[in-house]
Formats: sequence, structure tokens, C-alpha cells
Amino acid sequence: MDPSSLPDGVSAVVIGVDYGTLSGRAVVVRVSDGAELGSAVHPYSHGVLERELPSSGHLLPPDWALQVPSDYVDVLRNAVPQALAASGVPAEAVIGLGTDFTACTVLPVLADGTPLSELPEFADEPHAYVKLWKHHSAQSHADRINAAAHQRNEPWINRYGGKLSAEWALAKGLQLFEDAPAVYAATEHLVEAADWIVWRLTGTYVRNTCTTGYKAARQDGKYPSEEFLESLSPGFGGFIRDKIEHPVLELGELAGRLTAEAAAWTGLPEGIAICVGNVDAHVTSAAARALDPGQMVAIMGTSTCHVMNSDQLGEVPGMCGVVDGGIVKGLWGYEAGQSGVGDIFGWFVDSGVPDSYRLEAQRRGLGLHEYLTELAAAQAVGQTGLIALDWHNGNRSVLVDHTLSGVVVGQTTVTAPEDIYRALLEATAFGTRTIIEAFERNGVPVTEFIVAGGLLKNALLMQIYADVTRLPLSVITSEQGPALGSAIHAAVAAGAYPDVRTASEAMGRVERAAYRPDESRAKVYDAMFAEYTTLHDYFGRGGNDVMHRLRELRREALDR
Amino acid sequence: MDPSSLPDGVSAVVIGVDYGTLSGRAVVVRVSDGAELGSAVHPYSHGVLERELPSSGHLLPPDWALQVPSDYVDVLRNAVPQALAASGVPAEAVIGLGTDFTACTVLPVLADGTPLSELPEFADEPHAYVKLWKHHSAQSHADRINAAAHQRNEPWINRYGGKLSAEWALAKGLQLFEDAPAVYAATEHLVEAADWIVWRLTGTYVRNTCTTGYKAARQDGKYPSEEFLESLSPGFGGFIRDKIEHPVLELGELAGRLTAEAAAWTGLPEGIAICVGNVDAHVTSAAARALDPGQMVAIMGTSTCHVMNSDQLGEVPGMCGVVDGGIVKGLWGYEAGQSGVGDIFGWFVDSGVPDSYRLEAQRRGLGLHEYLTELAAAQAVGQTGLIALDWHNGNRSVLVDHTLSGVVVGQTTVTAPEDIYRALLEATAFGTRTIIEAFERNGVPVTEFIVAGGLLKNALLMQIYADVTRLPLSVITSEQGPALGSAIHAAVAAGAYPDVRTASEAMGRVERAAYRPDESRAKVYDAMFAEYTTLHDYFGRGGNDVMHRLRELRREALDR
Repeated sequence: MDPSSLPDGVSAVVIGVDYGTLSGRAVVVRVSDGAELGSAVHPYSHGVLERELPSSGHLLPPDWALQVPSDYVDVLRNAVPQALAASGVPAEAVIGLGTDFTACTVLPVLADGTPLSELPEFADEPHAYVKLWKHHSAQSHADRINAAAHQRNEPWINRYGGKLSAEWALAKGLQLFEDAPAVYAATEHLVEAADWIVWRLTGTYVRNTCTTGYKAARQDGKYPSEEFLESLSPGFGGFIRDKIEHPVLELGELAGRLTAEAAAWTGLPEGIAICVGNVDAHVTSAAARALDPGQMVAIMGTSTCHVMNSDQLGEVPGMCGVVDGGIVKGLWGYEAGQSGVGDIFGWFVDSGVPDSYRLEAQRRGLGLHEYLTELAAAQAVGQTGLIALDWHNGNRSVLVDHTLSGVVVGQTTVTAPEDIYRALLEATAFGTRTIIEAFERNGVPVTEFIVAGGLLKNALLMQIYADVTRLPLSVITSEQGPALGSAIHAAVAAGAYPDVRTASEAMGRVERAAYRPDESRAKVYDAMFAEYTTLHDYFGRGGNDVMHRLRELRREALDR
Repeated sequence: MDPSSLPDGVSAVVIGVDYGTLSGRAVVVRVSDGAELGSAVHPYSHGVLERELPSSGHLLPPDWALQVPSDYVDVLRNAVPQALAASGVPAEAVIGLGTDFTACTVLPVLADGTPLSELPEFADEPHAYVKLWKHHSAQSHADRINAAAHQRNEPWINRYGGKLSAEWALAKGLQLFEDAPAVYAATEHLVEAADWIVWRLTGTYVRNTCTTGYKAARQDGKYPSEEFLESLSPGFGGFIRDKIEHPVLELGELAGRLTAEAAAWTGLPEGIAICVGNVDAHVTSAAARALDPGQMVAIMGTSTCHVMNSDQLGEVPGMCGVVDGGIVKGLWGYEAGQSGVGDIFGWFVDSGVPDSYRLEAQRRGLGLHEYLTELAAAQAVGQTGLIALDWHNGNRSVLVDHTLSGVVVGQTTVTAPEDIYRALLEATAFGTRTIIEAFERNGVPVTEFIVAGGLLKNALLMQIYADVTRLPLSVITSEQGPALGSAIHAAVAAGAYPDVRTASEAMGRVERAAYRPDESRAKVYDAMFAEYTTLHDYFGRGGNDVMHRLRELRREALDR
């Protein structure tokens, strides 16, 4: 495993494996310069379980989202050897492997890591399966956790913008405890999938600073207290001690070495370095060479996740969380998010654009997004006469209210589809600026905006973000940011670089200041952002709770 | 002309002629029972002049809308004889003719009624032509009139909801005076087209209570004072005395008798009764048997005009006007309006519905409006989760602000086109309820809602209006309400009935309480209307002037 012992012309490589919501992707990356030499994707055969269990057809309630752990191992068995084959690199050139995962995605396991869902007695028990990040049925549990935390003035709650999410480990754990006592009793560890897959690779269970911090409420080396947990539900006091607590390693550290069993799955050499687990969004910072304080990385797809390091600790209202070493060792890692971005554009294109546009786009050989973007790009800032609120999926930051909804103000009978499309693009940029300003107001400056994810292909959208935020906008130049980030972490775990920053400098890929703000456009956007903010506060901060009442009316109508 | 002198089997008939924006329609109506025996439409060959003059190609500025007076005479020459032929009735059975017109539609004429646009010296002068009701370029003149009226506490301004429209005679007259002094000087009468066509038929110029009241600010027998007019612009003080003042007759009175010349145009017997002029919306009340106090008639098409009689005089903020005898002699006639109704639904169907809906509608043999209505009708009240403001064309009543714009609140990524369609239908119903409540708050009760116009075919829309207003909703059963109303007035002028009410009872056509409010739906609509009202006042009464600022940003963007 000494790179210098490789044959002539063969360079050392690492493998990054990115576990997404529907599939896992493996990428083979050259250690010296980050060149991506080959990749492969393997979809999860069970996908996301939202309606029923695969074994028995047991029906699931609304808002459930489960997965099957063996699907993750299948990615190791299939995508890894296929990526290696595609790269043409011999297996002996692979010096390490790193992974990233969706989070908070948790599963109950025995002491040896066996998922409870694989035990015959629990095969028909939904609570024994992996609860995917978007399993949303623990909202009432989260509400109780948040109310109790504020009532007791728990200091950690402000590290999470004042609210823990229903997606996170405490809410999911409380739901498990109360709704499935037998499964809870049998659970020897409630494990993040990010750590479970590393456990499968190394035979050793270690936790990581990222998921323990952002998802399990670990702050300053401690979790929420036994007294706090007991106050939520009698008997729940031992949750952290019994199900969660376990040694925690920093990101980029060596978790262990590839077992013979996992070497057989992957075709990789037994004993290579396996990095500690990580999260898809956070690991992308390394891939985008954006680990310095003030460099905000936005992974923009159906939704947007913002991650940024700072040497300052600020308690930013409405952020998702701040964690010491949550993105890179030695800095405070911040996370925020927008719950609808590409989702909103996609909804509009699917449901709000007439056939005349589709026909013209087809005639021109353009997709409908491309055609609308072209029309919207021809407009001057302000010309649409519209302002929208981007809350069609609720608001993650800074209002943390998933029951909010979208607004468009200013339509006339000459308003065209491209006007609304542009207003929606702009609305998401205003949402980002709202987040940036919340950081800055709380002592956490943002100096650069770096975009990863599918939406960076839309040049109009990128320019709008630069103009609205008045920040230079950089773009990652890898199409598989998370997997590249995992490979960079693997290179550190393998000892090829002294730390993640150095590895990121050598292996990351970014085009700096690909878009620069234009002052004349930025000035008009200042005026439009002031309108957005007025509407944001009116509809989002109690000026008019109409959105909540409309949602309630809708629920009542559907119940009737 | 004694009906008893007609041959056996031939009943006396009257003809109603309805002058619309693009065409004139003649209907032959049996005097005894209002049966419509034949009709014909004749389009104006010059339509609406919005870009250039027909003779010279002289370009018109934005917001201009002119017409050519000979087009109106062509309706007499063509539609009237065609309608008579279609009816199979001999000409000698026709005992009278009545007309209604768009308003305020005015033209400058010589003392004998010759339009100035027909004089060679003015053929290339836009101000010499008919200014159609929707000629909107006198807004700055209207603003000055309103400011001065309030400054001087002119009492008549409150008979117009506090604001005269830019469409009306004072604003159009002031524009003529200031922008075209030579045309103004040559003008011997500034005549409503409603009166001009009667003049053409009878050879006698008389004005009518409806247009003089609603459009020329005549109240309690007087017009605005010479001092007031002079204060607007030096030299304008004589406007009423020199250009407007003329004997005014009540609606339904005999204006004169058909001249030999007009008998030749129409093929009708010389000497038959010609009724005084009237306005399309107001005349419909008689056609719908809705002349009693509290019966609000809504003519619902691209926009909605509301007319209603009352024995009470109330000064309703934001109404268009109240005029003694403005609809029927002896009662106060009220007018209000919504500037976008069918226009908004049409805009949405044209620009906001995807091809999958169009294809499914085609497959089912339905129009897109019908298909969306069917989908929307399947929803429970409140199920859309949406509230809209119906201001896509501005707001005529009660805010009187044409620079407002539309809003939709509550979209999510599962919002479907039929949800938005339904929300827009409901928004216009909320707009109507807002008008009704303004009347009731000011001592003018509304007890029945009667619909005329093209939109009455949409049963879902009608039921929504009944549920939202909690009023029994009646519908006119004639498809040519204004022409029928004019025929009813002609029958009175001809002496076949003692007054318009009696004629209306015998000849009008209405289905009473065709839709009744449903209490359970009305209760949910009460909650939604409360939301509408909160948004209406927030965006429309100064809570947030964002719509004005967005319009300004749009103007600036287009100027750049």
C-alpha cells in the first residue's frame, strides 16, 4: 500500500462512495490531483419504502420513509468493482475508501451491527428498518422535545437555531421508544447509516463528529442530559447512554481497515484505509475547496443545503445547526437549508406552463426549463413585476416552519409563464440572501458563495444568485461532488495528505468567481429583496398566519 | 302603429339594439311577452382604433381607444333589417326601437350632430374621433379632477365613491380642451354615443338620465360648477354650459320618432317610437326583471358591472356612482364593478395550464374551461389551500385603483391547475361580496343577486357566488340581455306599457333562485372571506404598497 511500490505509470487512487436517497455512487479518484478516473452507480433495489414493507406487504402510515440495509452493502458489491473496472486502474493502486451518506438516516442494530430488520422476529416490524432522513412521522415527538428544551433552558437548543428537526435522532429515538417498545428494548445501538456502512467495511463501530453533532445533539462533547430525556417520557432517560453513546472520531480520521469479507465484496485489497463516516452535503465542502471561514457551499438540487465553516461561534436563529468540527476539524461547521428550490421550478414547469411553450421548446430542441430560462434571461431585473415567496415546500431556514406555503404577488393578465419562472428563481435567491444575512447579523460573516449540485448548470440562476447576494459565486467543476469529497477524506485517512485541507487543495475542483455581481442589477435586487423581506416577515413571522389557517382548512376539507 | 290594426296572427314587436365594444346586435322582441323572434349582429368595420387612424395611418399613443361613428350607423343599416328578416315579422308590426351603448363613449359634433371626424379638416386629428369607454389616456386629468374636488369639498364627488374615473366625460373633456384646442373650439356638443345614435334615428338631440348622471357628474339636476371647472384649467369653466348641457329625459321616455332617412336605413316604418339612449349594463336590469330595491344585477363577462336600485341614498365608498333615476325612474340607481373576472380566468387558462390538461380535455371533447371547472367542482370548499386576490386588471370597486395586481397565497408543490382555477373563481366571488358588504354598511341593503352575461353558463361559478354571498342567485334566461332590455324600453316609449317596471314584468326573463346558498359551504367561505379581506386591506389599503412599487420597478425596467 505504499504508493511508491506501484508499477510504473500507475498512480495511487482512492474511492469515494456517496450514498444518496435512491442509489449509491462510487468514484475512483487519483490521489495526486483529484482526477476522476471512473465511476458507477447502483440503485437500491428496495428504493424508499413509503407504502408497505417488502417482505409482508405490511402497510405504512403517511409520512413514513424506510430503507433496507442490505441495499447499502449491494452498492459495495456492485458500484465499487464497476467503478474500478471503468477506471482501468488495478485494485492494488487503491489505498483507501471513504463514504458519505444521507442523514439523519438511522437503524437499530444488535451489538455486532446486525440490523434488527434482518432478524426473523422483526421482519414485519416497520420500526426495525432504517428510518430514512425524510421519514417525517416523528413531528409530534420533535415538537415535545423543542418545547421541553425551551422550558428547561437547555443551552444546546440554540446551537440548532432554536429547534431540533423531526428528522433527527432524538425525535426518531423517542418515536421508537414510545411506539415500538419491543424493538427499542432489542436495540443495542441506534446507528447512523453513515457509521453503519463503515462498520460493515471495517468490522469496527465508530461514530463521527458530523452526524453526532448535527443529528444527535452532541455539543461540547456532551449529549442532552439523562434528566432532560427522562422528562420527555419516563424510561427514556437512558436513551443516549444505552443506544447512542460510542467513541466519536473526527472527519478524515482512520476508522479502521478493510476486512477480508468486505474485500471480497468490493474486489479491493484487504487492509486498505477506511475513513470515518460523513454526510453528503458536508463532505462536498472539501470537494469544492471551500473549507475556509466564510466560504458558504450550497448544494442546490430539489432543495438546497448550505454548509460553511467559521472560526466564530454564533447562535444563528433558524439555522439547522453549528457543530465543532462538523465539517472540518478545528472550525465551527454551520448548516442551513431551503426546503424547496429545484422542486419548485420543477413543479411550475410541470403544472403551470401551457402547451404553446412546450411546442416551441420542442421545435427548438430545448427542454422546457432551458426555454423558460432563455426567455427569462432576456428580461431586465424588475421587469416581471412579480415577487414570490419560495415556501412551496415550507421554510427550513430561517423560519423553520414546514407548514408555510408559496406566494406570488403582482400578476396581471399580461403576466407570462417566463415571468413567474423568473420570479421563482429570484425568490430562492432571496431565500438564500435571508440565510446569509441571518449569519452575518449573528457574527458569522459570509464572503464567498460556492455552488454544487445539479442547478449550477443554469447560468441565469447562478447570475441571479450573484447579483442578489452581491457575493462572488464559484462553482464546483466535478459532477460528483460528494463522492469526490469522500475520496479526499479517504486520502487523508490513508495518510497520503496530513489533513483534509491539504488534500482538498490538491484534489478539489472549483472555478472561482465564475459569476460576479453586477452593481446595476444588484441595486434593483436590493429594492426587490426589501419587498421579499416585508412579505417574508408578514407571512412568516406572525403578521398574518393565513398560511397555517389555509393548511388547516385544507386538512378539514380533505377529512370531510 | 296601433297594434290592433295588425293583420291576424301578427303581434306587435319592438327592436332592441345593443351597441357593444366590437359590434352591434339587433333583436326583434314581441311586445306581449318578450319572446325573442330574431336577431342579427353586425361588427364595426373599424373595430377599436388603438394603434392608428384608418384614414392616414396617424399613430396613436398608448392607452388610446377610438371608434368611427359611421360604424354605428352601419349597424342600423345591416343588423336591424337582418334581424327583422330573421324574425319573419313584417315591418309594419314594429312599433318602436330602443338602443343601449357602451359608456362613457363620447364624440365631438357640430350643432347638427355631424361628427368632427367626418370633416376633412379633422380627419387626421385623433381627438376628433369617438373616444371609446376604454380610452385610458386621461388618467392624469382624472387625478387632477379628483384632487381638486376633494380640496374644494365638492359634494358630488361622494356620489361617485370619492373618485371620478379617467373613462368619464369630465376627464375626457379636460383632455380634449388641453390637448386639442382647435377640436375643442369646433365642438358644439360633446355627445355620448348613446345619445348620438338616438339623434341619428330621430333627428332630435336629447340626453338621458343614465349617462348624464354616471358619466357627466350630473347630480340633483346640476353639473359641477363653472368655478370648479375653471379651477382645473383656465378657460375650461364653460365646458358644461357650452359642450354638455342639454335637455335630459328619463329612461324609457320617447326621444322622438324615426325619420324618413333612418327608416330607409333600417327598413322600419317612418314615425315609430324611438326611446332615449341607455347603457348596456343598466338596461339589463329591466331584461332580468330586477328593478326592485335590493336586486343587484351583475353582468359577468370579461369584467363585471353591478347595477342595483334602492329607495335609499347612500354614499358608498368605492362604488362607481349613484344616480337618481339612473336605472329606472323614481329610484336611486347604483353602479359598481370588478375590472377583471372572465379576463382573469381566460388569462389563466391560456397561460397557466399544462398540455396534459389540454390533451385530456380534447380527449373528452371538453373545452379547457369546462374541464378545469369539472375538476374544481369535485373539490370541497377549502381543499385548494389557496386564497387569491382578483386584481389582475386592477380593482374598480371598492378600492378604485387600477394599478393593483393579483396575488395567490398558499401554493405547494402539490398544487394543481384546478386548485388555482378554483381559487381565482372564488376570488372574484369574494370581490363581489366585498362590494355587497360596502353597500350594506352604507345603508343600501342587497337582497338578491341576479346574473347576466356569458359567465352564467358556469354552474360551479354560480354556486360559488351563491355560497360566498349567502344570497339566492337568479339568472337571466335571455342570451341577449342588453338588447332585450332596450326592446323593453322601446315598448314603453311606444306606449305599449305605462312604465318600464310593468314592461319588465311582462317581457323580462329570469329564473329566480336558480342557485341557493348551502350553509355548510357558506360557513367555510366565511372563514376564507375573512382571509381574503385581511389580504385585500393589507395589499389594497396601504398596509403594504408593494404592488405599486412592483409596477414602478417594471416601468423602470422597461424604460431601460
